[in-house]
Amino acid sequence: MKKKLIIVFMLFSLTLFVFGDEGMWQLNQLKGLNLQKKGLKIDISKIYSPDKPCIANAIVLLGGGTSELISSNGLILTNHHVAFGAVQRASIKGTDFVTNGFLAKSYEEEIEAPGYTANILQKMEDVTNQFVKFKRVKNLVKREKAINKKIKKITDGIEKGKKDIKATIARMYEGKQYILFVYKRFDDVRVVYVPPKAIGNYGGDIDNWMWPRHTGDFSFMRIYMAPDGSGSKYNKENVPYKPKYWLKISKGNLKDGDFTFIMGYPGSTTRYRTSYSVDVNLNHVYPTRIKLFKELIDLLEKYGKDSMIAKMKVSGFIKGLNNVMKNYQGKIEDMNRINYLQKKIEQEKKFMTFLNENKKSKKKYGKVLEKIKALYEISKKTRDHDELFSMFGFLGGTIPGMGIQIYNTAREREKPKKLRDPRFSEKDIKRAVSRLQFRFMSFYEPSDKAFLNKALKMAFKLPENSRIKGLDYILKNKNMTIKQFVDKSYKKTKLKDLKYVKSLFKKSVRELEALDDPFINMAKSLYAEKEELRKRNEKFGASITELRKQYISAISKWKEGILYSDANRTIRFTYGNVEGYSPKDAVYYAPFTTLKGVIEKNTGKAPFDVPKALMELYEKKDFGRWKDPILNDVPVDFLHKCDITGGNSGSPVLNANGELIGIAFDGNWEAMNSDWEFNEAKQRTISVDIRYVMFITEKLGKADRISKEVGLK
Amino acid sequence: MKKKLIIVFMLFSLTLFVFGDEGMWQLNQLKGLNLQKKGLKIDISKIYSPDKPCIANAIVLLGGGTSELISSNGLILTNHHVAFGAVQRASIKGTDFVTNGFLAKSYEEEIEAPGYTANILQKMEDVTNQFVKFKRVKNLVKREKAINKKIKKITDGIEKGKKDIKATIARMYEGKQYILFVYKRFDDVRVVYVPPKAIGNYGGDIDNWMWPRHTGDFSFMRIYMAPDGSGSKYNKENVPYKPKYWLKISKGNLKDGDFTFIMGYPGSTTRYRTSYSVDVNLNHVYPTRIKLFKELIDLLEKYGKDSMIAKMKVSGFIKGLNNVMKNYQGKIEDMNRINYLQKKIEQEKKFMTFLNENKKSKKKYGKVLEKIKALYEISKKTRDHDELFSMFGFLGGTIPGMGIQIYNTAREREKPKKLRDPRFSEKDIKRAVSRLQFRFMSFYEPSDKAFLNKALKMAFKLPENSRIKGLDYILKNKNMTIKQFVDKSYKKTKLKDLKYVKSLFKKSVRELEALDDPFINMAKSLYAEKEELRKRNEKFGASITELRKQYISAISKWKEGILYSDANRTIRFTYGNVEGYSPKDAVYYAPFTTLKGVIEKNTGKAPFDVPKALMELYEKKDFGRWKDPILNDVPVDFLHKCDITGGNSGSPVLNANGELIGIAFDGNWEAMNSDWEFNEAKQRTISVDIRYVMFITEKLGKADRISKEVGLK
Repeated sequence: MKKKLIIVFMLFSLTLFVFGDEGMWQLNQLKGLNLQKKGLKIDISKIYSPDKPCIANAIVLLGGGTSELISSNGLILTNHHVAFGAVQRASIKGTDFVTNGFLAKSYEEEIEAPGYTANILQKMEDVTNQFVKFKRVKNLVKREKAINKKIKKITDGIEKGKKDIKATIARMYEGKQYILFVYKRFDDVRVVYVPPKAIGNYGGDIDNWMWPRHTGDFSFMRIYMAPDGSGSKYNKENVPYKPKYWLKISKGNLKDGDFTFIMGYPGSTTRYRTSYSVDVNLNHVYPTRIKLFKELIDLLEKYGKDSMIAKMKVSGFIKGLNNVMKNYQGKIEDMNRINYLQKKIEQEKKFMTFLNENKKSKKKYGKVLEKIKALYEISKKTRDHDELFSMFGFLGGTIPGMGIQIYNTAREREKPKKLRDPRFSEKDIKRAVSRLQFRFMSFYEPSDKAFLNKALKMAFKLPENSRIKGLDYILKNKNMTIKQFVDKSYKKTKLKDLKYVKSLFKKSVRELEALDDPFINMAKSLYAEKEELRKRNEKFGASITELRKQYISAISKWKEGILYSDANRTIRFTYGNVEGYSPKDAVYYAPFTTLKGVIEKNTGKAPFDVPKALMELYEKKDFGRWKDPILNDVPVDFLHKCDITGGNSGSPVLNANGELIGIAFDGNWEAMNSDWEFNEAKQRTISVDIRYVMFITEKLGKADRISKEVGLK
Repeated sequence: MKKKLIIVFMLFSLTLFVFGDEGMWQLNQLKGLNLQKKGLKIDISKIYSPDKPCIANAIVLLGGGTSELISSNGLILTNHHVAFGAVQRASIKGTDFVTNGFLAKSYEEEIEAPGYTANILQKMEDVTNQFVKFKRVKNLVKREKAINKKIKKITDGIEKGKKDIKATIARMYEGKQYILFVYKRFDDVRVVYVPPKAIGNYGGDIDNWMWPRHTGDFSFMRIYMAPDGSGSKYNKENVPYKPKYWLKISKGNLKDGDFTFIMGYPGSTTRYRTSYSVDVNLNHVYPTRIKLFKELIDLLEKYGKDSMIAKMKVSGFIKGLNNVMKNYQGKIEDMNRINYLQKKIEQEKKFMTFLNENKKSKKKYGKVLEKIKALYEISKKTRDHDELFSMFGFLGGTIPGMGIQIYNTAREREKPKKLRDPRFSEKDIKRAVSRLQFRFMSFYEPSDKAFLNKALKMAFKLPENSRIKGLDYILKNKNMTIKQFVDKSYKKTKLKDLKYVKSLFKKSVRELEALDDPFINMAKSLYAEKEELRKRNEKFGASITELRKQYISAISKWKEGILYSDANRTIRFTYGNVEGYSPKDAVYYAPFTTLKGVIEKNTGKAPFDVPKALMELYEKKDFGRWKDPILNDVPVDFLHKCDITGGNSGSPVLNANGELIGIAFDGNWEAMNSDWEFNEAKQRTISVDIRYVMFITEKLGKADRISKEVGLK
């Protein structure tokens, strides 16, 4: 709590070569962005300052998304789809909060959101100089291991003895820069107000990624801390978190053309990849996964029809698969539309021309593309085997996946310390064990079995030279069909019991093998190949990372400007004006949707089932102070030119004065390739307007409590 | 040729109560429209004048659509979908003109378009005073018959001895007004230039009714006349028609907001119907037909896969069914969206309030709605039977339908002259016989059989009290299944031979019955019920027409203004500016599409398969003089606020100076209810821009011949 956000200014802080509003910038890069000229009306020190309270202090890493502090009592805003899991889990116990929404009328009524962790950044520090020496290690796999060991050593040192501190070191630009992030962890997060699903997920999977959008994708939660101010697990004695800084909600009216910015935790982008990487994704990874996901969704939907409980258990997974699948489909469509692969190839030709004209650079980087190509060629050879093998990672959520995890954990533990995978520290294992309960919550045996059955059938179809040898004992067994094996194994296994499973994480390899559990046996049979695959991946990873680093260095030389690092789940800043776009010839998308549009889409059936109470508010034009004077209606969602990606979900959108005007929740269909390339003409962030958030919260949710807390009443 | 377009000014020519750009106006109503104020820059006498050459002289009724004269040598422009049938028939002989397009490089190469008739209006005259006396006939069925007899007498008198003259009398406002139209008929129409299907039907059924649209829906044809100037059948000696007036192609650039008008032959609208009519269509007719059409399309598509020839034969029919089905679906969607039925009901409540406040009107019209309701109630009772029975009219194009037509014709002929259906005059029969060849062209036995099979199966499912008694001998025959009956009948019938079928139209009932042809037998068995149904329809028709006439009169009193008559395939005028629209919240449709958009939609697969040559023109930006300075591209289609419907297809779109700027070809999806109600905010005409027509014709079609002929080169 007393620690200050510290950042040491580093490399890359001069002028920029990128155009438009491209870029997910590190906070130390703000100075170079000329934000005042672009429309920002506050000093950048209000956005980020290493030693004074600033907006950055209000940005919270929450689960897979982002959230923002909006009151002195730890109230946070995030997306409905970020809070969805908690609401769903709370609903399994009885009342259907998913459908009806939920409002806690007092602190006491706020519901625990098990599994949710809020990380609040305390410190950033450039630690690159501690990693320079590893250049001397010539063997790349060894170098990579040494780097990981070093990272572990630093972060362990910081975390040691502090149960609420989490340290990570992020590699920027594939490892040209190493930044240490120190967070304070809060495992007690509670649900305060969630609108009905028909608001928070209005339009569902049909409207996902689409504009015009009418989703009220928001939820209010609260961070709690131990009475002594430390981060803690859920505990009745805990008290609301007291933040250093929290965001003020704008009372003004956002309009077309206004300056906006976003801060949040974008997950991953691939803006500096080569054509070889595009090729493998566009022509292999995406289509293969789309096919697989489609089949899995069909499977799950079938089982989802069994019962209400089954539906609840599988629906989250379906939603996730659908989301990723639609994303991949959009990427393929978009890449083909703009002929992205060809574009990359031509870009690389120009790059080679540059190299040929610059002897020094040529000597240093002349073979980088060639080497990357060679690496992809090698990996192609084992691709079929390796991908299907990894699917047994997909099985992670299933009972056989549990067996694999238990067995592999024991094997790691028994390795000499030097060889042990750093991701299997005792602390990691402890955390994994504590999270098992959530997996068991969504365990549904029929779909679980169908998953294994499907994976085995796919393995059976592999050509002989790609076959998974560890499955021979099943697939080459002529006395038993796959289905029989699956049925028998599910009957016999004891891994369906959480308590029992937990106990197995303490057992030795020998003890586990003695159990003769079918899924432990499967893990044992797969282990040798898993180790081979791990080594193969280590080698590929170490080599490609080094080459990518070199490639970025070369591009930096070529473009003679400042680059932003690819997103890597560290805090970033992006800005851009409110602006519509033309998705196609003769069509223009305006940047605001309205309540009228919500009503227009109503069919009475999910996902377009407007709640009666909202219909009435619309009919009475009971918009309160949330009516926009230009639209003459309540604004719902809006488009702006910020550059975000997955992980940004729930990020605050702020105006030129640094006031909260919305919550980012989606990208748009016409820019599905945005993780690969920023497209100024078509790429937009879709955010829910804070006026819709407050209109729903006040008028539909009757949550006066929240209005008062955020200073609006 | 020497006759003048005469029109006697009639009723209703004062000021108007309608707003916006609503209305399909008769040519004598132009004076009341204040067109100069709306933007027209020429005198209305240039549009229509009973005795001077005018634009109206250039408007040609062609097949099911409209076309326009554009050269002194009888060259006409119409839609690709209007000329489609001719191109398809020409293709069956060998070369695939549908796919490749067709250009005649000289008059000699122009292809005969058998079955196409061009009717050019010679005279219009108000003959209402000749029908006033029939009010005295109290029995409505008798009155209707007397009116039809009178019509026949007048038109026969005019046509007598003139083989190229066609006279019709149209009832305006359901019979408040009778207008005589005299046309000159030309049965020799030839194909001059048709673009490839990938231009003329770009977007196909997917884009049908939709915006943004990128269809080059145009074709050039030519009217030929006998050397003596009379209308004639196809004959090598014929010469190009010399029109009195033809349209000049605009050399200017059409832009957003410009004034436009359309003249053409809209088929049918129902703008003055009651809620009872809406109810039966919305809740019964449309859904029933959608279901049926879907099934028929599935059936046809299955057979269309048999061979290329089969596909060609059924494709026109599929296209037609798809078009109507999508239209019905759109109508249901639109009616539901705007809650049209409820709106009508409320309108009628207001109407009743008006009547209650006006004693005189109440006395005259107080019961009209009630009586209409009662009529619909009665027809409901026999609805199931009657509709399925009429489906045997659907079978018209099939072999069994042929049997029914032959037999019914003979029966009509043997009736006393007084009782004979006026639509079965010797002249009508002769024309029907001469058209038989086109039916045989698309005869494909497997789908023909499947149709009958389907109809019989549907009849089998009717409840006992609705059953078609004339089919008892098939459906209640326990010794033979429906399939067996169908198979046997198709084996036995001789009606598959055109020459033989033609000969049967000369036979007596007795002779026909003696043939023992299964489909003549079926016709015989159905005849009594057919007569009953005809009488029922006559009664309903006579009654509802009279009531509708009264209702329109009452509305005219209520609204105190001038109404336009519902469309009835007579020449009409409509105007409105170029304007986009907002189809839904946050989306705006601009009024022009461009060549860029054509390329954007390209998938390489029909119906989005841009011809290579067009792709190249686009890549080279070889737009010639057809580039719009604002769009910086070739305009393709545009939206304007004219009020059109089916039958208007191919109508010329003219600018304020009366120059040709486009060809109307579609309405838009957001106004599918337009036949029932004009919606100023959402209803638009979709037209192909003359600049795209000429760009394609010149640059892709290399049809310099046409450019020269229309004075553009």
